[in-house]
Amino acid sequence: MAGMTEPSAGAPPVLPPTDDLDEVERRLASTSLLEAMTTQRAVRRVLPDPVDERIVRRLVEVALEAPTGSNGQNWEFVVVTEQATKEALGRQYARAWKVYGGLGRRMRTDEQTRRILRSVEWQVEHFTEIPVLVVCCLRGGANLPFLPVPSIAASSHYGSVYPSVQNLLLAARAVGLGGSLITLPLWSATVARRLLGLPFTVEPCCVVPLGWAKGRYGPKARKPVDEVLHRGRYGETLT
Amino acid sequence: MAGMTEPSAGAPPVLPPTDDLDEVERRLASTSLLEAMTTQRAVRRVLPDPVDERIVRRLVEVALEAPTGSNGQNWEFVVVTEQATKEALGRQYARAWKVYGGLGRRMRTDEQTRRILRSVEWQVEHFTEIPVLVVCCLRGGANLPFLPVPSIAASSHYGSVYPSVQNLLLAARAVGLGGSLITLPLWSATVARRLLGLPFTVEPCCVVPLGWAKGRYGPKARKPVDEVLHRGRYGETLT
Repeated sequence: MAGMTEPSAGAPPVLPPTDDLDEVERRLASTSLLEAMTTQRAVRRVLPDPVDERIVRRLVEVALEAPTGSNGQNWEFVVVTEQATKEALGRQYARAWKVYGGLGRRMRTDEQTRRILRSVEWQVEHFTEIPVLVVCCLRGGANLPFLPVPSIAASSHYGSVYPSVQNLLLAARAVGLGGSLITLPLWSATVARRLLGLPFTVEPCCVVPLGWAKGRYGPKARKPVDEVLHRGRYGETLT
Repeated sequence: MAGMTEPSAGAPPVLPPTDDLDEVERRLASTSLLEAMTTQRAVRRVLPDPVDERIVRRLVEVALEAPTGSNGQNWEFVVVTEQATKEALGRQYARAWKVYGGLGRRMRTDEQTRRILRSVEWQVEHFTEIPVLVVCCLRGGANLPFLPVPSIAASSHYGSVYPSVQNLLLAARAVGLGGSLITLPLWSATVARRLLGLPFTVEPCCVVPLGWAKGRYGPKARKPVDEVLHRGRYGETLT
């Protein structure tokens, strides 16, 4: 893509699956922050092998280290491994992808985007084979008394779940689990609520599918920082 | 706070200010992911000493390693160091805090919350002394053609900026800069847009104030993971 830095070689090796919690802890402790961030990418192709529930619990535990507005900690995480629920969410994903994927194919045609589209297609087609789905939710809505006035209410609201989602993804990267951040399986909040037994006060925000990585983590294409960095006022570039 | 794990001792030492980019890189590379995540907390009390612009640029660069919906990379970051802009945003912050801070003082009275409230009060009162404000923005709105249907549009939208904000905060932690995530200075998007010269298509989402940490990073109070982790369906706990 024009203006992007191309991903270079040097992707870290794929870590083998494990159910040894000590090994998981070692992987978490031995990955540097910089390495985790720079090699994080959406890894959608994963092995069907089960992922130990205690590992998922540990990843959610470190996700909870993230900030929330007014330290409200109004997050909820539903871990889905049941075939029936995965099938139902997968049907939602496939229906939504039919609309938005088609749109994407028509709108963007560079190789980088085609690669992403193929990887999403894999995920849609193999959704029920993905061992774990973590559905990240928020209790309360944009009308909670502790949340600010409308113009920034929505931003403050979602700002209380996505930092934890990013922790979850970074920790998955460190442990060797493939992860990605998707919302299309939730395009009908009503269906998602029914499937997951969520009360009306709990909003499903996104899904993080997890499985042992088949695809590689590694560098990815990004715009140069100076294209999106402004000094003092929008349009005035830094340095 | 009931049900919270209390912050234990063992906070990492406060790192001294630096304008040596090699030292910044060493700090980024030598911090483990786990350490950065577990010791991240809102550090609002910062020194008035300037922060080298190149360090801020580097932090934004690693923020860009985060995922965005459809890899849209529709983020924009405005770095504010000018006194007049800080004063104007600070006035917005103080006005909004008068309403919401008062609310908070009446609603929650445990020691943990009082500590947070005092720290926010410090930030409101010393806002113009904070050397750098990074205003994190999104181009386009929830009505972009590539974004999904209404029910998850807002979540997908903000899901394209807050993972990068979390990267920015984790990197600030590693480097020794105090950072926090706030939205109240933006409670009037109109005022914020005018101050920052943002076009109508660019939405200011949150502010990350940065300065050399006076307060400490370290452990913080969090609910136990099993309180927010559900297995298969909401309410069914894991393990």
